[in-house]
Amino acid sequence: MKATVSKEDLIAGISRTAGALPQRPSSMQVLQNILLKFSEEDRAIRSTATDLEIAVIVETPATVQQGGVVTVPGKKFLESVRELPAGEVSLSVDQKRLTLKSGRTRLTLLGAAGEEYPSIPTTTGGAEVTVDAEAFREAARKTVIAVSTDEARSFLTGAALIVNSECTRLVATDGHRLAIADFGLVKSKKAKNGAVEINAIIPRRILAEIISESTQGEISIAVGETNAVFTTSGGTYYSRLIAEKFPDYKKIIPGAPEKKIEIDRQKLADALRRVSPFSNVRTHGVMFSLKSDHVILSAETPEFGEAQDEVEASVSGSPIDIHFNSRYLIDLLKILKGDKIKIGLGQKISPAVFSTEDDKGYIYVLMPLRS
Amino acid sequence: MKATVSKEDLIAGISRTAGALPQRPSSMQVLQNILLKFSEEDRAIRSTATDLEIAVIVETPATVQQGGVVTVPGKKFLESVRELPAGEVSLSVDQKRLTLKSGRTRLTLLGAAGEEYPSIPTTTGGAEVTVDAEAFREAARKTVIAVSTDEARSFLTGAALIVNSECTRLVATDGHRLAIADFGLVKSKKAKNGAVEINAIIPRRILAEIISESTQGEISIAVGETNAVFTTSGGTYYSRLIAEKFPDYKKIIPGAPEKKIEIDRQKLADALRRVSPFSNVRTHGVMFSLKSDHVILSAETPEFGEAQDEVEASVSGSPIDIHFNSRYLIDLLKILKGDKIKIGLGQKISPAVFSTEDDKGYIYVLMPLRS
Repeated sequence: MKATVSKEDLIAGISRTAGALPQRPSSMQVLQNILLKFSEEDRAIRSTATDLEIAVIVETPATVQQGGVVTVPGKKFLESVRELPAGEVSLSVDQKRLTLKSGRTRLTLLGAAGEEYPSIPTTTGGAEVTVDAEAFREAARKTVIAVSTDEARSFLTGAALIVNSECTRLVATDGHRLAIADFGLVKSKKAKNGAVEINAIIPRRILAEIISESTQGEISIAVGETNAVFTTSGGTYYSRLIAEKFPDYKKIIPGAPEKKIEIDRQKLADALRRVSPFSNVRTHGVMFSLKSDHVILSAETPEFGEAQDEVEASVSGSPIDIHFNSRYLIDLLKILKGDKIKIGLGQKISPAVFSTEDDKGYIYVLMPLRS
Repeated sequence: MKATVSKEDLIAGISRTAGALPQRPSSMQVLQNILLKFSEEDRAIRSTATDLEIAVIVETPATVQQGGVVTVPGKKFLESVRELPAGEVSLSVDQKRLTLKSGRTRLTLLGAAGEEYPSIPTTTGGAEVTVDAEAFREAARKTVIAVSTDEARSFLTGAALIVNSECTRLVATDGHRLAIADFGLVKSKKAKNGAVEINAIIPRRILAEIISESTQGEISIAVGETNAVFTTSGGTYYSRLIAEKFPDYKKIIPGAPEKKIEIDRQKLADALRRVSPFSNVRTHGVMFSLKSDHVILSAETPEFGEAQDEVEASVSGSPIDIHFNSRYLIDLLKILKGDKIKIGLGQKISPAVFSTEDDKGYIYVLMPLRS
């Protein structure tokens, strides 16, 4: 095995791949390795990492003198390539030992045979859709904030990808908040059974990997019975699906609101950052008191003291005092676009709906805290 | 108590002060607080923090309407001030409750009476010297890297400050490396007993606080029997001394070297960063093999593999293979100035001396590893 590649291309490729390395120690030692395939035919080095739940595969253009397969310790490989001088790197493998040469530097990593590495199914047999890369990443960014981290409720630890004749969307909820982001399809391809219908729970982690990419162009999404494959111009992202039923989120979306607020996004975020350190450390509750032309934010704890701030707002409907988890709101305000936020409210314990003019096709529903 | 102060000035002052807050939970709850003194006479807010080993006191110019003393939780206070809008902040204290007002924001922190706070002795009765602030900070930066973190050998957990008729220097050693940095005196003032002689061990932590400052001008250093006080234009830094005997470091400094190397600082640092990840995880040993016009750096471990790099060098004396702890060298190369490093070597296990043309008055001695 022998190839030459640009250091910059190689580091870009294997940094992406490394995102799928197991985050916890795995009983399968070889998963700590990155699989490298030197392909003369593809003129590329293909790098693969997986924790068996997700996998990332990236092809890096290379001059391949001799093809073959090897695995090398992922973190050590990344660290080694990162410190190499800029420019060309020559890679050669002899008896599972990968040697990197660049200038007067020679680094040899002890690897393992490629045959020990699990194979990653990159086809699904299911429906396929093609979406605009940036539009899909934006929808994913706006929904992952509502994905649950509670492993005990695994059906909430991913976002539902829903494609049918009515809508194309990602939906996530953790029981306290619900995010729905619609995006358009560029094209679609029916599954073997004839329908272009997708209803699958995509684990948070693979969405996070896709979000962290910045390629232009399109993403092809194939979803089968048990797995999904996302193909971007930067790489292939494989994931098992969460094999459970996503809750009926539609019944959580409230109807037309009784009260409406229009408020500056940045000013609201500033006020929340000032007031929230004084909120209860468990609930992070901040009180919103609606007045005719402003909202008063306040929080109080016996340990720290109290805080109050005011933000001008256009308010319609009768005054109300309503409690929200400030952390959720701070997360939301970071990813929303546009200067103005619209908030629709009902009664003290009815869900609130957040939206902006610039985030068409996005709904964020937040349950108030009981005060 | 009532005062008005610029947010920017206040945050600069209390961020410095907060450096002396206890790093571990203390049995004395009030030490988690910052002491604030509003002084009409000084037209300033004086903030103090201490962990009883060190203390930092900073005066911030303020318009004081009514003087007084209070203590407030340090981290919460810092966090609260940081989030305030830019501009003027009004502070008022009522019944140990400090209220910050700025624009439409009002934050109230629950504090404690100033009387519960320990008093910090800011005089020492000992000798006093005045030094150039930047020269002293540079000497401190170059010695703290050799201070031991081993609490079991507390006499090595600080740097010796030595002022006598022969020299003015900071010295630190952890048994593996020794750093000596000389600096000049601007002026000196005798102690009550008549001598300008200082020989005291200054804890690492207070040196780190002084290094992190960036004030111009001079630093006045007063050293008594049990404590030292450093006064900069930015604040007052108090510290207990380490009441032990510093080792006789002079006998560690080797005489004229048998072999000399002159090598590019940046190239050596790059090569070390590439090779050291392959060094033994415990010793971090990298082998230096001296050739006539270059040095080969190499490392090898059964777990990871092996690495080799070459750096051109001007070498005099017979060839030798010598092992150094690469972490120590990486620390050193970060703070040294100038393009070229000089290394003086003796036998395989004799101490090596590192110096540069641009670091006059600085000696760094490193014990090789036994290979």
